[in-house]
Amino acid sequence: MADDVNVKGMDESDPTIALTDRGLAYGDGLFETVLLRDGAARLWDEHCERLSQGARRLGFEPPSREWLDALPERAPAGEQVLKIMLTRGSGGRGYRPPLPAEPRCYWQFMPFSPMPARWDSGVNVRLCRLRLARQPALAGIKHLNRLENVLARQEWQEDAIAEGILLNDCDQLVEATAMNLAWHDQGQWWTPALTECGVEGTLRRALVERGHLTVTEHAPLSRLLNSQTACLFNSVQGLWPIVTCCDPDNQHLLAQWPIDESVRRLQREAHTLLGHVFNLPTS
Amino acid sequence: MADDVNVKGMDESDPTIALTDRGLAYGDGLFETVLLRDGAARLWDEHCERLSQGARRLGFEPPSREWLDALPERAPAGEQVLKIMLTRGSGGRGYRPPLPAEPRCYWQFMPFSPMPARWDSGVNVRLCRLRLARQPALAGIKHLNRLENVLARQEWQEDAIAEGILLNDCDQLVEATAMNLAWHDQGQWWTPALTECGVEGTLRRALVERGHLTVTEHAPLSRLLNSQTACLFNSVQGLWPIVTCCDPDNQHLLAQWPIDESVRRLQREAHTLLGHVFNLPTS
Repeated sequence: MADDVNVKGMDESDPTIALTDRGLAYGDGLFETVLLRDGAARLWDEHCERLSQGARRLGFEPPSREWLDALPERAPAGEQVLKIMLTRGSGGRGYRPPLPAEPRCYWQFMPFSPMPARWDSGVNVRLCRLRLARQPALAGIKHLNRLENVLARQEWQEDAIAEGILLNDCDQLVEATAMNLAWHDQGQWWTPALTECGVEGTLRRALVERGHLTVTEHAPLSRLLNSQTACLFNSVQGLWPIVTCCDPDNQHLLAQWPIDESVRRLQREAHTLLGHVFNLPTS
Repeated sequence: MADDVNVKGMDESDPTIALTDRGLAYGDGLFETVLLRDGAARLWDEHCERLSQGARRLGFEPPSREWLDALPERAPAGEQVLKIMLTRGSGGRGYRPPLPAEPRCYWQFMPFSPMPARWDSGVNVRLCRLRLARQPALAGIKHLNRLENVLARQEWQEDAIAEGILLNDCDQLVEATAMNLAWHDQGQWWTPALTECGVEGTLRRALVERGHLTVTEHAPLSRLLNSQTACLFNSVQGLWPIVTCCDPDNQHLLAQWPIDESVRRLQREAHTLLGHVFNLPTS
C-alpha cells in the first residue's frame, strides 16, 4: 500500500481530486508545508516524520520515505513552498474507513518570499476569542480538520495584526493560528505542551530536540503576558519576535515586549535551521 | 454571491474538484445527506435550513433556497440519497478566508435501501473509547471536519455492532457516530443537548419541534443505561431501537432494553416524517 500510493500533483495536467475523496468528505487526511530552496527541503526529516506519524494516528499506511524523497526534486528553482496533502483516498461506508485504505497524495509548489521586516521589527498580535477544543486523539498532528484555525483567523482583518494567540477551553496557552508560540522567562524559552490540541510544528520539534525550547504544561495566559520577551515561528516564515499583544476587541494593549538578545539568539538558531539569511537587528 | 454559487455535480462529465478547494485543505465547508423518494426530498426544509445556518456560522453566504430547490428534481427514480457538499471555495491566504468567498456546491445521488430488519429487531451498539471534544463554535452544524466520527467508527469491525455511542470529554451523552440518540424514561423521550458538540440531525430537529423529544443537558451515561428503552435515528436510515449496549472491548454487556410500545410510537412518528413504510413489530 505504501508503495503504490495514488499520486496526483499540480504539475500534472489535471489539478483536481475525486469528489469522493475522504479528504474532502471528512477532512480525513493530513498536510505539510515545506520550505524549499533550489529544490533542497528544509527540516525534511521532521516533515516526513510528522506526516507518517499522522497517518498512523489516523489508522492508515503513509507513503514510504523513498517515495516522499522524490517530491522536492521536482521543485522549481528559488524559494518555494511544497504543500503535500495526504488523504485516506476514497471508499468505505460513510465514516467507516476502507480496509485497507488506498491513500492519495496531492502536492503543489508555490513561490515563497519571506517577510524580513517581521524578522527585524517583530509583529503585533491579538488574543483570539475562539478557544481550541481539547482532543488528545488529534492533538499534535497536522490533519485536514482545520475549521478552528479558519474561524480564529477570520476574527480580524487588520493587516497590522500579524497573528492571533489561541488558548484552549481551559484558558491555557497553545499556539497561534498558523505558528507555534514561545516566551522567555527565568533564563529559558518555554513553549506550550501540545498533547491536547494544537499542531506540533516541525521547527518547534527541531528547537525542542536541540534544547533551545522547554515544553511546559497548563500555562495560563499570564505566563505569556508577564514574560520577558515572546515570539512566533514556523518552518516556512521563520521566527517573528512579538512586540505587542492586544485584546480580542483591539481596544486594550495586554502586553508589550522588547526585541532583546535572547529572542535574537533563538531567531538565529531557527533561521540557521531554515537557511534564512539572518538579518542583524536594525536597532 | 448566493446567486452565482459555483456548481459541480457527479452527474456532470468531470466528477472532480479543484485541488485548491478549501473544503479539502481545511474541511472548510458543510454537507447534507437527504433521503429522496422519486425525486421528492424528505425533511427538505430542515436540510436547507441547517445548511444555511452552517454557512452563516462559518462566515459565508449559503446558496439561495431557490437554487437548492432545483437539486432534488435531478434525482433518478426510486429511493436515493442526495449528498450535498458546500465549501467556501478556493482562495484566501492560508487559513484566512477570501472576502467575499465564492462558495462551491457539489452533489451526488446514490441509490439507497433501508434496513428494515434493524427497524423491526433493533440493533446492538457499543460505547466508543473516543470522547468528543467540546467546541461550541462548531457544535450542531454538519461541517466537513469529521475526523472524530471517522476515528470513532474505526474502533470496531464487527458487523453485529451497528453503531457506537459517543460521550463528550466530560463523559456526558452526545450521539452515535452517524445518528442521534434518545432514551425513554419517566414517561418521556430524551435526547442530549448539542450546544457543545455533535450534529443536530434534521430528523432530531423535526421530532423535537413536534414535541416528541425533550432536550436534556449534561446527561451522564447512566441516564441511558438506566432508561426504559433507547433508540438511534437519522433522516436517512429512520429509527433503530437499541437492544444491547456493550463496553468498548465488547466484553461486557452494559445494558439491554426491550422494544416496547413507546419506541414503536416514536418510530412511527419518525417513519411518517421520512415516508418509510412502517413495519409492524414482528413479536
